Amino acid sequence: METLDLNVDIQKAILQDMLMRFLSEDVGMEDITTRAVIPEGTEARAQVIVKERAVVAGVEEIRLLFEMLGLKVRRALRDGVEVEPGTTIMEVSGDARTILTAERTALNILMRMSGIATATRRLVEKVREAGLKTKIAATRKTAPGLRYLDKKAVEVGGGDPHRFRLDDAVLIKDNHIAIVGGVDEAVRKARESVSFAKKVEVEVRTLDEALEAARSGADIIMLDNMTVEDVESTLRMLEREGLRDKVLIEVSGGITEENLLQYAKLEPDIISVGSLTHSVKAVDISLEVLGVQG
Amino acid sequence: METLDLNVDIQKAILQDMLMRFLSEDVGMEDITTRAVIPEGTEARAQVIVKERAVVAGVEEIRLLFEMLGLKVRRALRDGVEVEPGTTIMEVSGDARTILTAERTALNILMRMSGIATATRRLVEKVREAGLKTKIAATRKTAPGLRYLDKKAVEVGGGDPHRFRLDDAVLIKDNHIAIVGGVDEAVRKARESVSFAKKVEVEVRTLDEALEAARSGADIIMLDNMTVEDVESTLRMLEREGLRDKVLIEVSGGITEENLLQYAKLEPDIISVGSLTHSVKAVDISLEVLGVQG
Amino acid sequence: METLDLNVDIQKAILQDMLMRFLSEDVGMEDITTRAVIPEGTEARAQVIVKERAVVAGVEEIRLLFEMLGLKVRRALRDGVEVEPGTTIMEVSGDARTILTAERTALNILMRMSGIATATRRLVEKVREAGLKTKIAATRKTAPGLRYLDKKAVEVGGGDPHRFRLDDAVLIKDNHIAIVGGVDEAVRKARESVSFAKKVEVEVRTLDEALEAARSGADIIMLDNMTVEDVESTLRMLEREGLRDKVLIEVSGGITEENLLQYAKLEPDIISVGSLTHSVKAVDISLEVLGVQG
Amino acid sequence: METLDLNVDIQKAILQDMLMRFLSEDVGMEDITTRAVIPEGTEARAQVIVKERAVVAGVEEIRLLFEMLGLKVRRALRDGVEVEPGTTIMEVSGDARTILTAERTALNILMRMSGIATATRRLVEKVREAGLKTKIAATRKTAPGLRYLDKKAVEVGGGDPHRFRLDDAVLIKDNHIAIVGGVDEAVRKARESVSFAKKVEVEVRTLDEALEAARSGADIIMLDNMTVEDVESTLRMLEREGLRDKVLIEVSGGITEENLLQYAKLEPDIISVGSLTHSVKAVDISLEVLGVQG
Amino acid sequence: METLDLNVDIQKAILQDMLMRFLSEDVGMEDITTRAVIPEGTEARAQVIVKERAVVAGVEEIRLLFEMLGLKVRRALRDGVEVEPGTTIMEVSGDARTILTAERTALNILMRMSGIATATRRLVEKVREAGLKTKIAATRKTAPGLRYLDKKAVEVGGGDPHRFRLDDAVLIKDNHIAIVGGVDEAVRKARESVSFAKKVEVEVRTLDEALEAARSGADIIMLDNMTVEDVESTLRMLEREGLRDKVLIEVSGGITEENLLQYAKLEPDIISVGSLTHSVKAVDISLEVLGVQG
Amino acid sequence: METLDLNVDIQKAILQDMLMRFLSEDVGMEDITTRAVIPEGTEARAQVIVKERAVVAGVEEIRLLFEMLGLKVRRALRDGVEVEPGTTIMEVSGDARTILTAERTALNILMRMSGIATATRRLVEKVREAGLKTKIAATRKTAPGLRYLDKKAVEVGGGDPHRFRLDDAVLIKDNHIAIVGGVDEAVRKARESVSFAKKVEVEVRTLDEALEAARSGADIIMLDNMTVEDVESTLRMLEREGLRDKVLIEVSGGITEENLLQYAKLEPDIISVGSLTHSVKAVDISLEVLGVQG
Repeated sequence: METLDLNVDIQKAILQDMLMRFLSEDVGMEDITTRAVIPEGTEARAQVIVKERAVVAGVEEIRLLFEMLGLKVRRALRDGVEVEPGTTIMEVSGDARTILTAERTALNILMRMSGIATATRRLVEKVREAGLKTKIAATRKTAPGLRYLDKKAVEVGGGDPHRFRLDDAVLIKDNHIAIVGGVDEAVRKARESVSFAKKVEVEVRTLDEALEAARSGADIIMLDNMTVEDVESTLRMLEREGLRDKVLIEVSGGITEENLLQYAKLEPDIISVGSLTHSVKAVDISLEVLGVQG
Repeated sequence: METLDLNVDIQKAILQDMLMRFLSEDVGMEDITTRAVIPEGTEARAQVIVKERAVVAGVEEIRLLFEMLGLKVRRALRDGVEVEPGTTIMEVSGDARTILTAERTALNILMRMSGIATATRRLVEKVREAGLKTKIAATRKTAPGLRYLDKKAVEVGGGDPHRFRLDDAVLIKDNHIAIVGGVDEAVRKARESVSFAKKVEVEVRTLDEALEAARSGADIIMLDNMTVEDVESTLRMLEREGLRDKVLIEVSGGITEENLLQYAKLEPDIISVGSLTHSVKAVDISLEVLGVQG
Repeated sequence: METLDLNVDIQKAILQDMLMRFLSEDVGMEDITTRAVIPEGTEARAQVIVKERAVVAGVEEIRLLFEMLGLKVRRALRDGVEVEPGTTIMEVSGDARTILTAERTALNILMRMSGIATATRRLVEKVREAGLKTKIAATRKTAPGLRYLDKKAVEVGGGDPHRFRLDDAVLIKDNHIAIVGGVDEAVRKARESVSFAKKVEVEVRTLDEALEAARSGADIIMLDNMTVEDVESTLRMLEREGLRDKVLIEVSGGITEENLLQYAKLEPDIISVGSLTHSVKAVDISLEVLGVQG
Repeated sequence: METLDLNVDIQKAILQDMLMRFLSEDVGMEDITTRAVIPEGTEARAQVIVKERAVVAGVEEIRLLFEMLGLKVRRALRDGVEVEPGTTIMEVSGDARTILTAERTALNILMRMSGIATATRRLVEKVREAGLKTKIAATRKTAPGLRYLDKKAVEVGGGDPHRFRLDDAVLIKDNHIAIVGGVDEAVRKARESVSFAKKVEVEVRTLDEALEAARSGADIIMLDNMTVEDVESTLRMLEREGLRDKVLIEVSGGITEENLLQYAKLEPDIISVGSLTHSVKAVDISLEVLGVQG
Repeated sequence: METLDLNVDIQKAILQDMLMRFLSEDVGMEDITTRAVIPEGTEARAQVIVKERAVVAGVEEIRLLFEMLGLKVRRALRDGVEVEPGTTIMEVSGDARTILTAERTALNILMRMSGIATATRRLVEKVREAGLKTKIAATRKTAPGLRYLDKKAVEVGGGDPHRFRLDDAVLIKDNHIAIVGGVDEAVRKARESVSFAKKVEVEVRTLDEALEAARSGADIIMLDNMTVEDVESTLRMLEREGLRDKVLIEVSGGITEENLLQYAKLEPDIISVGSLTHSVKAVDISLEVLGVQG
Repeated sequence: METLDLNVDIQKAILQDMLMRFLSEDVGMEDITTRAVIPEGTEARAQVIVKERAVVAGVEEIRLLFEMLGLKVRRALRDGVEVEPGTTIMEVSGDARTILTAERTALNILMRMSGIATATRRLVEKVREAGLKTKIAATRKTAPGLRYLDKKAVEVGGGDPHRFRLDDAVLIKDNHIAIVGGVDEAVRKARESVSFAKKVEVEVRTLDEALEAARSGADIIMLDNMTVEDVESTLRMLEREGLRDKVLIEVSGGITEENLLQYAKLEPDIISVGSLTHSVKAVDISLEVLGVQG
């Protein structure tokens, strides 16, 4: 799984807008402290240092942020690299005022994205080390306004981003079924009126619903909040009915680092984990000024 | 400490823009699932239910979100209320398609804000229950783009929002001092060129720096990453020098739920905690459709 | 195939922004003619009348436009209805100045969308009348900035909107294959690094490439710019190889009203037609003021 | 008639915003196909080739688009040049991913603008070849959001852009007159309350109205939907009354390639044609990757 | 001369955006004073009172601002009315917090616009009282971002707004002529390549240039920075040459309240005055809370 | 007092957006005069010349504006310099069309900002020449949308910018007190619910209120609209009560160039003057093309 590519300048241009919005949110009219305290024209050099074991993510974003502001970035690590405490993620040099004013925005991005990538990688590795192929996927439980950065951090960690938006793919959830009356009816309606270019996924809570979903031609079935046992019997039944190969199976709800392997051993195609993006533990990272000229 | 007031419609108007941006990020061109599956004109009623003990925050925001979209909100709790698992935070009714399409955006806001308020309240209560007066404050370590919501959630939890932006107040940090050479010089420069309407805060790492800061006329001194012992001896020295009453003391860096009281017992004016907003554990909240007409 | 639903207010809110942008492009600082010539407070009633046979589309959009501006809309037809010359599409009444100022923007939307729906419907009917099931689909050859309205008009006409954006689904085109070296390699790479939630489509030019695509596990194969004969032999070969049911077949390139049925009779799943949106013939529609009060 | 000048960087800056909006509409979060399939760092060279006889327009715009994205453009034709099928409009080289991601947006602009310029030029040439001086003008029947590009394409084709917006000049139309009661009254009101810097045009349907308009001091009279005979007698009458030199005469409504010269021979000052922009036939243009390095 | 009409809701919608931008500039994240000090739910009534003789302008704008925020406006004067010190311009009632938070933005608009209208009216009256017909016009010397409000205030005062933007009408200035070489050449070029729908104005500094301009077919001639004597001899010469009726004459540069009538007596069509908008003296207006409930 | 620093590129980026908005307001779709009259590719050199004694401000802004547009700026004065009539503020060279199109926007910024700086400097000098230390401060009575530029111009002139926004610092005004009932109550409420990082200022009208404010712990007391005598007795009383050193005293309301020193001699900390920004007299500055190549 490859990282989103900021070399494509279109991406850059879209990202620049977002970064300027973040900066401007933090700066307001000006950084009154830096302007008052740091002499105009001072040049400085600083390091971005990680304080704990982590998978770094957000390096491309903050490199772009610093470069947009006329700073020079050197020795930047690649996103996705695993690092030990004390590792320098990048060096940045140039106008001292600019470095200090951008510091917090840069770190806020880097700390959150690295937190997401680190948590994702931990789950991905656990599955791989057990010799299994199940993908770890994110959900739409991202911080409002940060869909792009949160999903990218999941990918940097080795996870699957899943849907970006509600127009990406069909996902019929329990509330839809509660209203429409049944799985089969819901899948049929989706197939009929949604473009052929989209996949149809349906969330089910029981073995019977799973069978109904597979028969009605869903592309993906999400087994939601099922016990390990229920997932197991559902997968067996689908196999027995010759339906297992026709659908992708996603397991979701209540997955933790602890029970992950129990589910993964049943070899669903995907396990999705909301906490990867809704309950992020930021990685501790700081920026330290090394030296000054000027 | 009172909650930000959405009754002031100016706030509402600014917030509506933000909410529409969040919605539009999640929806894209349209919610293809809901449009395909739910018949036009279906009316539904749903409950927003919390699954764990929490302080709820974000109720005003998602009420506004639902009402902007023509839905009716009833029985909404007030922000800041502490709730048990299973509590209904609000009921929402109206066009079923609208409810389903807005669901994820609403929950993403509510879950994050409640997570922040809950963590803040826990610290605030701990201090109060020990009969102490130290304020718990947030930092600028918020999620990019969410400064307003993150700070508001801290206030709902009973915390102090601290600076909103870099133009709010002067805060001279270690990197500033590293460049400018000394605490006294930095404070003097800030006093000279920044408006009289702003406070001047300075971050120090040693007792000596703290003394220097107090003597140079800083309004607030942040004792950064100091041990309990160092904070204690610093406070004593300030008192001995007759400087304690002239400044506010903020303790910051490495404060956890565990060591909080050790610091609080020294009676600094403020303890600020970055993890309140940079490492949020979302509260588990869901929306459940109760019934349908139409 | 159902029409996009403006009753979902989220859609409305997004659309309102777009409509205001269009209005403001046309109005500039003010409609100097109307302000100078029409007395303040004049109330008028007007009809929107179609001058030729057409399928109307854009009614929901201009109804929203008029209502946003405080006008009353009555007797509006439903989008997708086929009408004879002289039919009244809607009546609008209210402030005369507002009606006149909004007239051109409303008609520009309605005339283009109805043009697209009319052309789409003609092809859809032709296929249906021949007793065939092939879907007629649009492409991304829409007018810049009008992706949403152009695609919606195709749906109103009974067509399939196909991809909304480049992040919707994978579509490997000739230029991708030219760079990457082969169909199989390209499909394999896409499968590997793109989310499981997306379909993978590949554009091919020969029978051999089509076979390669089907074997490599593509979900959809686009037969691009092939003759009727080549499409036919490709479909036969896929059937012979037992691959026909595993893929959707889209025929594209050089399809006209004249040769449509020749291709459709081969029963591909989809025929996509760029000219539906890149070469729109607007439907002739005008707004006529009926009466005035005030 | 000269082409709008993109060398004036103000124009460029305004245009860049529009181009980024178009790109972003097409790209969404990222071009998932290109990222998955094309290796990072691949360099490519491509040609933009026209497939039919045409007047090219939009070259400056897509050159700017490509250059904004860090691509190199060579051998670009000048806007307004007439080309044969197979002509290369420009070569573009650089990051292969960027070229492929921008391809559709660039072509959508180029194909539409060239379609408009080609249709305009055809009419302009027809008039010129008949040795006549009447100008061909566009109307405000442009695609919503594309006023600038549509009008520019008309100018590239040799046409007159006419009004940009409703605040540009006064144009009293039939609906205005229907409300206000009479041509003379309407013109008088406009003269009185509109700035001296604007021209006053009035649309009339009969010889009598045309006379009334000329006498009331209109700068331009639009003869709307009149037969050739009616236009002729109106022009004669104006001449007889000594009014022909005091006004510009614009003929509009129902003008086609077929009847154009019949009207033009009567030597009105302007003939305006809505279909130039409301019913555009896109020119067939494609982008072909020639070679790859890296 | 009539006032711009906010009853046309299109205008309103465009204006609302601008007003929200102004409010948000002043408010930032929230009005911390009002929130802290004024109890939620307090209702108040306030008066907007003028402290000096003035022509009021901006009433429609701030009424819209207040109403957007849910406040009630009563007894609002009409824009353009002349008032004595102590006059109540409007009463506003509703949520006390909202009134206080919006106060400054509303007054800043009202004070500036009334200042412009008052100064304009003074000149307009002076000319009218002398029994003359020359119009008083504004220039493009408006405050950046306030073109619309500044021009509207001029109209409220009875002045002519002149060009809104650089695409409104041609105005060939001294710097253009300096580059292109001569008045005649410049006018000819403009006539040739600019749409027939625009007027062509040219700025001249001498009698000879004025003659050249009139002969080359300019619609308007601006006599720039000429003495009263030079204006007089220029007008006489134009009359003698039979050119006076073919052009509008605008006098500009160095016009003050003192010398206005000397120029106006020569009966140019327009006198334009930059200071009307570039050097505004705000009218002293305040908002006073009358009473409170709740 | 130092000038805001545009070398910090963050500031630049925020400013560029604002400048493009101003340009685009003035340009509309294009500068039709310049395009028609000035040959493509013409290079020119021009001087920005001041016509009266002034303190220049806005130089950094228009330098940025010109450079954004690809022009070269030389010999630019520093903001804050005092100049004699006829002084060249800067030279600008490059594409002639660009220079002419940007001219008005640049001058509008420069003339207003220099007007503000000049008026501020006059007051500041007056106080300094009398050997006094009172600061001259601005208010929030700025032109809507121009808060940043207006405040910066005050700083360039040597003044204090005071609050940027309503969330900057607490300022309890007469209307707040009228509603809440008393100074003490209002200050207490503000202290309680506003962050410790903000100062609390209160506006008073009498000696008694001033005493109440000082005792309740306000950081700053604004003596509003008091006579010189009342200010004097208030200051004496505060001193007598030992409160003078605990608060900053701001005098406001009705201060003119004439009575300034009478107030300043009483040695308040700050005198704030609304007219500095609400009633700006623009400095007369023009741009003159010197020579042309090309």
